Amino acid sequence: MFDKSTYVTRRENLKKEVESGILLFLGNEEQGLHYADNCFRYRQDSTFLYFFGITTPGLAAVIDIDNGNEILFGDELSMDAIVWMGNQPTLKEKASMAGISTVLPYSELKKYISKAASKGQKIHYLPTYRDEHKIKLSDLLNITFEQINPSVEFIKGVVSLRKNKTEEEIAEIEKACNITAEMHLAAMRALKDGMMEYEIASVVEAAAKSRGAELSFPTIATINGQTLHNHYYGNKANNGRMFLLDAGAEVESGYAGDMSSTFPVAEKFTSQQKEIYKIQNNMHYGAIEALKPGRRFEEVYDLSAQIMVNDMKDLGLMKGDAVEAVKAGAHALFYPHGLGHMMGLDVHDMENLGEVWVGYNGKPKSTQFGRKSLRLARELEPGFVLTIEPGVYFIPELIDMWRSEKRFEEFINYDEVEKYKNFGGIRNEEDYLITDDGSRRLGKRIPVFAEEVEAEKQKA
Amino acid sequence: MFDKSTYVTRRENLKKEVESGILLFLGNEEQGLHYADNCFRYRQDSTFLYFFGITTPGLAAVIDIDNGNEILFGDELSMDAIVWMGNQPTLKEKASMAGISTVLPYSELKKYISKAASKGQKIHYLPTYRDEHKIKLSDLLNITFEQINPSVEFIKGVVSLRKNKTEEEIAEIEKACNITAEMHLAAMRALKDGMMEYEIASVVEAAAKSRGAELSFPTIATINGQTLHNHYYGNKANNGRMFLLDAGAEVESGYAGDMSSTFPVAEKFTSQQKEIYKIQNNMHYGAIEALKPGRRFEEVYDLSAQIMVNDMKDLGLMKGDAVEAVKAGAHALFYPHGLGHMMGLDVHDMENLGEVWVGYNGKPKSTQFGRKSLRLARELEPGFVLTIEPGVYFIPELIDMWRSEKRFEEFINYDEVEKYKNFGGIRNEEDYLITDDGSRRLGKRIPVFAEEVEAEKQKA
Repeated sequence: MFDKSTYVTRRENLKKEVESGILLFLGNEEQGLHYADNCFRYRQDSTFLYFFGITTPGLAAVIDIDNGNEILFGDELSMDAIVWMGNQPTLKEKASMAGISTVLPYSELKKYISKAASKGQKIHYLPTYRDEHKIKLSDLLNITFEQINPSVEFIKGVVSLRKNKTEEEIAEIEKACNITAEMHLAAMRALKDGMMEYEIASVVEAAAKSRGAELSFPTIATINGQTLHNHYYGNKANNGRMFLLDAGAEVESGYAGDMSSTFPVAEKFTSQQKEIYKIQNNMHYGAIEALKPGRRFEEVYDLSAQIMVNDMKDLGLMKGDAVEAVKAGAHALFYPHGLGHMMGLDVHDMENLGEVWVGYNGKPKSTQFGRKSLRLARELEPGFVLTIEPGVYFIPELIDMWRSEKRFEEFINYDEVEKYKNFGGIRNEEDYLITDDGSRRLGKRIPVFAEEVEAEKQKA
Repeated sequence: MFDKSTYVTRRENLKKEVESGILLFLGNEEQGLHYADNCFRYRQDSTFLYFFGITTPGLAAVIDIDNGNEILFGDELSMDAIVWMGNQPTLKEKASMAGISTVLPYSELKKYISKAASKGQKIHYLPTYRDEHKIKLSDLLNITFEQINPSVEFIKGVVSLRKNKTEEEIAEIEKACNITAEMHLAAMRALKDGMMEYEIASVVEAAAKSRGAELSFPTIATINGQTLHNHYYGNKANNGRMFLLDAGAEVESGYAGDMSSTFPVAEKFTSQQKEIYKIQNNMHYGAIEALKPGRRFEEVYDLSAQIMVNDMKDLGLMKGDAVEAVKAGAHALFYPHGLGHMMGLDVHDMENLGEVWVGYNGKPKSTQFGRKSLRLARELEPGFVLTIEPGVYFIPELIDMWRSEKRFEEFINYDEVEKYKNFGGIRNEEDYLITDDGSRRLGKRIPVFAEEVEAEKQKA
């Protein structure tokens, strides 16, 4: 937890963002995996964590804008629970560490909400992302699931605070990024011909957990980098193939790191791999150089895509005008995702609050394939923390589909593309802070150029 | 997956257990941790896995007892999903591997259930352990959460099949047990003075994951063994203290292992630690020798508790008649949990179906402190797989409470107990199969005697 004053200040600032009514915060519960008591990782809701700092399951809180009340709802541990789970600070003590002096039993929450509603106070709540939230809101507010209607005023208020990271948050994110870098370095050094993907996933996870961190998201550790969200670890890695790792740490305070790297199973890249690797590097550093306050992130995405198209033209894989190709969406055959996303208490920061409010500042999103996966488009501000993660992929199923539909034949040389069909995919990813005049990388540098990757593998 | 014939046979056998109506099986969904798409470990429902073998999220199935129909409900992947998650067998192909020829879109499930209900067929379903199950049942059956009423006939039918493991299941459980043993050996060798608990938890997890296994439950890795369900890893382990590890592997087929071990941080146990360790060993092997078909497991629990009381009397910590002490529940100050539980596709096998049906064969459970935590009491049968895990603990909060209430002063020498108050706790645990004439340990043997533990630590 940060100092009490952090949470007090955050709540005071939030109160200025919402006109009137009650702000209702639902903390998270434990969730059983295949029976109720076999709960794997517990994670507090990030907005609850941001404003109250308490990680205990089964809590809720309200901030009454109209009278300034701040109340934590939850139950103290029974002696049975202490025997099974150990002694710990009381809820009252935890609340006090967050600057909250009123703690009521959880059963009082419904009465409090009902009374407030009956007095005509508006009950503001955030979007649900777990079934438990839907069930609780339906019960507390006496509404059906269909009637659940999150408060845009509350969402906008939370986003307006969480989007700009303070010094103490940046220090925590940097801790997570440093551990994240160690995860990638450990994998590069460990990978040898004939190893199974799960062996590398295990090395990566151990590099986080042996440092007291958690994973910030399920690791991608694959010889099939062209499959974007691949959580299968059952393939054998053989010389000649590349390995794509997308993994990050979450430190105790809840802040995340998120990096990707692509490295050869063998000691060296092949010359074809180096050609495409160089394209990713150009996109990567082209984007980073363009980062500064006031610039729309979607422009940076466009830039990274145009760089790719021009480089692909040099290899004979694409043709035509790069700006036109990107506008039309032809680049998405090789680059079907966005350039990056906000990062903080969530690795995709505030994703549960809605991409339109978080990444687009209320403006509508594109529906174009590829561009629709851009999670962040808005004007950059100092204090934004974001990932930079352009990629180049050859996805056989997608290539076959587009070719059969004769899609973008004016921009794509399908005959040439066929030669790369079993290539796989390349992505590198680093984390950046937007500063007053540009940007700063967060955490220890991982190898990004092919030569650096090969040198790191030598350290095995 | 096992061979198709395994699933066909299991379903045929189940059909004989339920008189009439529709058996409804709900598979599990992915669950977001702090936003919808950040899903950590996915686990299929174990009963779904047992009868259908398919691990894909978002499925349901019905078996129509009245006409013999077997239908899988689910949706094929879209091209977008293939791009993001990779190509895989179609649902139709997966269903066919389980011997199911009819696959319908998920949206057809509600129609099917409604039609069956309107024809007067009874819809049988199992107890819910996730909010998603409650929401689905409420929607499918047009009932409130309060009206959800699982079918005892269905529960009993499932338990009657899952409780006795076949040769092919035992082979899978033994794989899990062998990896589980490696997890414990790795920890014993790795632990050194000054290490953090999370470093050992990480070694244990890596020992499973580097072998392509998952954890079967969240690891307990603690210097505070007296806290029974302790998932905090933030303490430093120092010489003089013991370390308690309770951890297990789950193999790809879903079958679990579960072992516990207690070992000194230093190279050797202290003489006080050895004294108590010896008591655990006596309870442990006393219980194992008593395992055989036809014996009630609660008798074996009583025996383990009586052995402890007699040994505690020798140390001056307890007094009086051991049988009377155990009947009264006085042993539970030091041994507040059960002796073991069934193990299979769940580490606490079928826990979601209700302990009374699984462990007590429909007979009521005791409410006495300690004994009420006995998950298994029924007569043992060949093919049962269970854990043996007696423990001896000194729980300061519990000792203080009982002493202040003068509880069981006729059996407990509280003045002597005070001398052990900061001792911690000891538990060893192994997994056993009930055979036709006794029992057989499953998996590689881990050190159980103090001398063996000390020898294993030398191998570091």
